[in-house]
Amino acid sequence: MAPGAARAMFRSGLVTPTSGWCDGFAQANLIVVPADWAFDVLLFAQRNPKPCPVLGVLEAGEVTGPLLGGGDVRTDVPLYTVYRDGEAAGTRTDLLDVWREDLVTFALGCSFTFEAALQEAGIPIAHIDQGVNVPMYRTNVPCEPAGRLSGPLVVSMRAIPASRVADAVRITSRYPAVHGAPVHVGAPQELGIRDLGAPDYGDAVQIPDGHVPVFWACGVTPQAAVLESGVPFALGHAPGHMLVTDLPDWQYQVP
Amino acid sequence: MAPGAARAMFRSGLVTPTSGWCDGFAQANLIVVPADWAFDVLLFAQRNPKPCPVLGVLEAGEVTGPLLGGGDVRTDVPLYTVYRDGEAAGTRTDLLDVWREDLVTFALGCSFTFEAALQEAGIPIAHIDQGVNVPMYRTNVPCEPAGRLSGPLVVSMRAIPASRVADAVRITSRYPAVHGAPVHVGAPQELGIRDLGAPDYGDAVQIPDGHVPVFWACGVTPQAAVLESGVPFALGHAPGHMLVTDLPDWQYQVP
Repeated sequence: MAPGAARAMFRSGLVTPTSGWCDGFAQANLIVVPADWAFDVLLFAQRNPKPCPVLGVLEAGEVTGPLLGGGDVRTDVPLYTVYRDGEAAGTRTDLLDVWREDLVTFALGCSFTFEAALQEAGIPIAHIDQGVNVPMYRTNVPCEPAGRLSGPLVVSMRAIPASRVADAVRITSRYPAVHGAPVHVGAPQELGIRDLGAPDYGDAVQIPDGHVPVFWACGVTPQAAVLESGVPFALGHAPGHMLVTDLPDWQYQVP
Repeated sequence: MAPGAARAMFRSGLVTPTSGWCDGFAQANLIVVPADWAFDVLLFAQRNPKPCPVLGVLEAGEVTGPLLGGGDVRTDVPLYTVYRDGEAAGTRTDLLDVWREDLVTFALGCSFTFEAALQEAGIPIAHIDQGVNVPMYRTNVPCEPAGRLSGPLVVSMRAIPASRVADAVRITSRYPAVHGAPVHVGAPQELGIRDLGAPDYGDAVQIPDGHVPVFWACGVTPQAAVLESGVPFALGHAPGHMLVTDLPDWQYQVP
């Protein structure tokens, strides 16, 4: 399916995680803040490039751009989250009635981009095979603060057969602009994760025997920082429910 | 010489271009703007990563950081430039009497970092051999605008023996965080450069027969944007007179 067609379905109200959608096109995390907070967010991204690889920025007043030709960032994502005064204030299927002219939108790379490459190499992706959202966890690893923003690293988890962990590292290393290599392999307790079956975002997956939990930096990280830092108003995609962009995946692969 | 020792010499008043200084340590371009302009500058850098690779940012009120352990960004560069209302307002050897608490400092990678690698490969660097500053030119290539900032790409030029141009491309490609591969090889008129002997910044160099002018994106680019965009107040290093940082060069090399 073409990205524009997928965005039209989401604009019409379809709510679904987007892992596996629109093979070959990059998906993006969103973080949207008032202009007064935009420098803090961009500096946070510059200092934390693994969780926050910037694919594009819509300046204040802009609702579309090259990432979503003809689309509207307020309507074209399956599900959004709203934050007020550092607290989650619900989800919604569009942002039309909460939009403000001073909002700046950051689109960040998403690990869904390298999932196709993992699958092509014969590495199973549990959440795709099980038809659920990818599990994500807040860790005890602090990000580098920036201005008024600080918060923990958020990671996504994929259970990889032990014999394929090295391949998964090698393959995802080739995609530095979409989180790149894992930040952690095995030993979830070292990240402060007590129960892999109770992710902070997304869905739990069954981990088959002989599979190892492998953790990648996740673009939900700035949403955790918005919560932690008491940002007065912010918006984001609902975890796993991404902006499907017009950007081809291959351009994020390095030799 | 250790970077701290070089910075101490500059702090004491030595004025000199820094190409060839402190082998093995990264040098940095500076652009310093009031907080009100900081988002525009960081977004300009994000959209123009070849001329503006961000090595570090000192937030408003900060004058030191990990890039210059124990140093002071207001005194430790050999020569600075001042801009007022989009016009050059002279150079000075320190910034103490023009400093403001709301100033944000951006340190950007510098092509001096890969010069040692070129020399190790036996590629001569004319401006080092001739003991002058590297020649730099404003081009007719527009940068991607960001907020209120727009301006032309600035390039540095090295004359490379025709038989070594491919090597120079290959070697500098390994340093994407310090401008990376050339943006242009030969044909200076295509960049709008009419006379290689009259650079806009730095010094002219003799180009030996059989050498080809090769152009790299240059970290003076945001200073050209500050001029072009009428920024009320900004500071920078004087072209070629860089901040010598404590960051080892090798960490900017990719396989």
